[in-house]
Amino acid sequence: MTTKILTSPISGFMELLPAEQIVFNKMLGIIKDTYEIYGFVPIDTPVLERADVLLAKAGGETEKQIYRFFKGDLEHAMRFDLTVPLARYVTEHYPDLVFPFKRYAIGKVYRGERPQAGRFREFYQCDIDVIGDETLDLRFDAELPSIIATIFQRFGFEKFRIRINNRKIFSGLFAGLCLADKSKEIMQAIDKIDKIGKEGVLSELLKLDLSPDSTERIMDFIAINGSSDEILKQLKNLGINNETFALGICELSEVVSLIRLFGVNDRNFKIDLSIARGLDYYTGTVYETILEDYPEIGSVCSGGRYEELASSYSNRKLPGVGVSIGLTRLFDQLLKKGIVLPGPSSVTKVMIVPLIDDLSNPLSLAQELRSSGIPTELSFVSGKLKKKMSYASKLGVPYVIFIGEEELKNNSCTIKDFSTGNQETVSRDDVLRLLKEHLFSGGTGNGIKLHN
Amino acid sequence: MTTKILTSPISGFMELLPAEQIVFNKMLGIIKDTYEIYGFVPIDTPVLERADVLLAKAGGETEKQIYRFFKGDLEHAMRFDLTVPLARYVTEHYPDLVFPFKRYAIGKVYRGERPQAGRFREFYQCDIDVIGDETLDLRFDAELPSIIATIFQRFGFEKFRIRINNRKIFSGLFAGLCLADKSKEIMQAIDKIDKIGKEGVLSELLKLDLSPDSTERIMDFIAINGSSDEILKQLKNLGINNETFALGICELSEVVSLIRLFGVNDRNFKIDLSIARGLDYYTGTVYETILEDYPEIGSVCSGGRYEELASSYSNRKLPGVGVSIGLTRLFDQLLKKGIVLPGPSSVTKVMIVPLIDDLSNPLSLAQELRSSGIPTELSFVSGKLKKKMSYASKLGVPYVIFIGEEELKNNSCTIKDFSTGNQETVSRDDVLRLLKEHLFSGGTGNGIKLHN
Repeated sequence: MTTKILTSPISGFMELLPAEQIVFNKMLGIIKDTYEIYGFVPIDTPVLERADVLLAKAGGETEKQIYRFFKGDLEHAMRFDLTVPLARYVTEHYPDLVFPFKRYAIGKVYRGERPQAGRFREFYQCDIDVIGDETLDLRFDAELPSIIATIFQRFGFEKFRIRINNRKIFSGLFAGLCLADKSKEIMQAIDKIDKIGKEGVLSELLKLDLSPDSTERIMDFIAINGSSDEILKQLKNLGINNETFALGICELSEVVSLIRLFGVNDRNFKIDLSIARGLDYYTGTVYETILEDYPEIGSVCSGGRYEELASSYSNRKLPGVGVSIGLTRLFDQLLKKGIVLPGPSSVTKVMIVPLIDDLSNPLSLAQELRSSGIPTELSFVSGKLKKKMSYASKLGVPYVIFIGEEELKNNSCTIKDFSTGNQETVSRDDVLRLLKEHLFSGGTGNGIKLHN
Repeated sequence: MTTKILTSPISGFMELLPAEQIVFNKMLGIIKDTYEIYGFVPIDTPVLERADVLLAKAGGETEKQIYRFFKGDLEHAMRFDLTVPLARYVTEHYPDLVFPFKRYAIGKVYRGERPQAGRFREFYQCDIDVIGDETLDLRFDAELPSIIATIFQRFGFEKFRIRINNRKIFSGLFAGLCLADKSKEIMQAIDKIDKIGKEGVLSELLKLDLSPDSTERIMDFIAINGSSDEILKQLKNLGINNETFALGICELSEVVSLIRLFGVNDRNFKIDLSIARGLDYYTGTVYETILEDYPEIGSVCSGGRYEELASSYSNRKLPGVGVSIGLTRLFDQLLKKGIVLPGPSSVTKVMIVPLIDDLSNPLSLAQELRSSGIPTELSFVSGKLKKKMSYASKLGVPYVIFIGEEELKNNSCTIKDFSTGNQETVSRDDVLRLLKEHLFSGGTGNGIKLHN
């Protein structure tokens, strides 16, 4: 048989096989359920927006990547994140919203970048944000990490770490040293520390013509390490006399205490003064999350606090704090590394195979199981028993039930458990109870299958 | 405050407020759950496809409506349905799929038509299809109506009706009368029956220069009515000697018997010989679904059987049967008519309001409720009690729990039930049980709120 036309998706667009899609959707479901259990409300904005609305704040690389086109007289653009649409949404619907507005959004976004391994042009973002009207309580900055921690625990990870910093510490440090105008160059030097070491950073700083005192303070700042509490102590002892710097330490210290109170173990979060986040609009707390066994994946959940969500659209002061999980990239990496394993190719838990012509009895059993929440298929595969079994087996269905003449006469069913190969004939009245015991005991198909 | 830029969505793009979005998502959830409970597997294809792939079969109105544009050298197009991507997917992944392939897909599709009331340029389609390899059992044609019926029952509708026909009856009728070349004109005349009546159709037919016998047979055909069984009987008595016609009656008759066996009441389905479905590719069973109290909404779930899913992409014979619910339009109509009512603006069921500084106790209660599946918010609203209550009340949260000094001392909580206004102080150990009894008894927020 020949294929007439190229049927692969466009490069950079993920397309999964059923067994993979089922796991992907489970992860999506865990994110959605967790966001809702914390009382966040779903919103859904269009994929297409007016180009001038989406581009009001964009620039540089992002702007080049945007899919945009004219339809009629209007230039359309496909959304490249869920934050810009949120800003538009909050401005548009301001009178109808209750603040603090706690919303989540899960949807596809588009960036037409050059395709490369691990980068996608269409990908899911799973965003959660709290937007305040004029002010926003700092406690939300601590609630978000507890939500992230819940999600990664439910994914099955123990060794993840939410890295936390506060942008005010950087900006206060530079202002306190009267170096605000050189902050970009200094940041760039500091950013190289992993590659060139402390000595390297020092020689970079020396090129910038700073005072010896300033250079020393920056080197002291870089040298800060230890536990979250030790870092806070060293920051306070640094002797930087600047209000913003002090406020940053104060906020960070408060957020750390609250995160602990909110139930996140120190094993799963830590202050990391190197976290700055690329985007300009973060003004306070910033987050990155890494899987400690797989640091090469990079941050799997990032975000922060911003003072002006909607400054492009409105004069209202709308501060917010939010994080985003880029699920497409995360899933792709976990799958390729074999950390997440695809399971069966079907959501079906029970396949009923009628060996009799009259479907009444098999159908009534199917409806009984379905009413109890058990995904059930009635097999219409014709031919020999072997062929019927092969269909169920290829799909990875855990249980097959036969109903033949014998079973019909005795008001019974024959159940085959594919995981053990066992087969037994049981009373029709016991089927539901037996299946429920097996299926809902956590033994089969619940949660994400991680290869640890 | 002034708005700086137009922040409304582009015309024809639905955007909902939280209270509406929650109901929309509930309906989406019912569709998804029902599809899965019948053992259909989710797949997700890209929104952007190569234009030549999407347009391989399109034409006429559809082609004009497609959003298409060049990015680099490649012409991209946004999907306008989920069937064409399914055909591409099945062709591309054929070796990895198990047939019959039972898949569902829920996603947004795009048609840039002129905006008009009740029509959308971006809308959700909720598709379910079974694809066979070479052949496909007729029983699937009967299983789909039972799935549709389950969904509309779970939506809360009693008076919906799935109208069923078989395309072979039309084509066989015309072939049997040697009128295949005039079938288009005859269909157009018949289609006008609601407007011009039987007499009108007759005078239209007379213009077509048919034999008196043919005209009589067609008029006899149009006159057929009654229950599904009566219609089948009259069809058989029509005396059309044509194999396709006979096969159509045979299939329709079989499908009707099976639909009944599959548990759909005759109240909710009926043969309707006027159903033809616009699309050319249907070859057997066709479906439309109407809400009997609101026929002006038109069909809310349509589909049918096709012999060649992927003929544009592959030489394989891949017959299928499927239906689609256009949820965006349906929801819009139900909302505008007041049939579906928006509920609260939040998914939160319990708002915990701490009246003490130490959050430990309120937080541990929040975590306990969340672990039990109860969406719970901890209120960080500052100020007087009235302000805190107003936040919960505006969101429509059903229960508020206060924890103050008194409660802390007595290991208790004060619960206010917003639906009754009642407030009582209960032991901390009883809170979860009491809330579960109320929340999961079906009293609050379950299902879709229909105004009947």
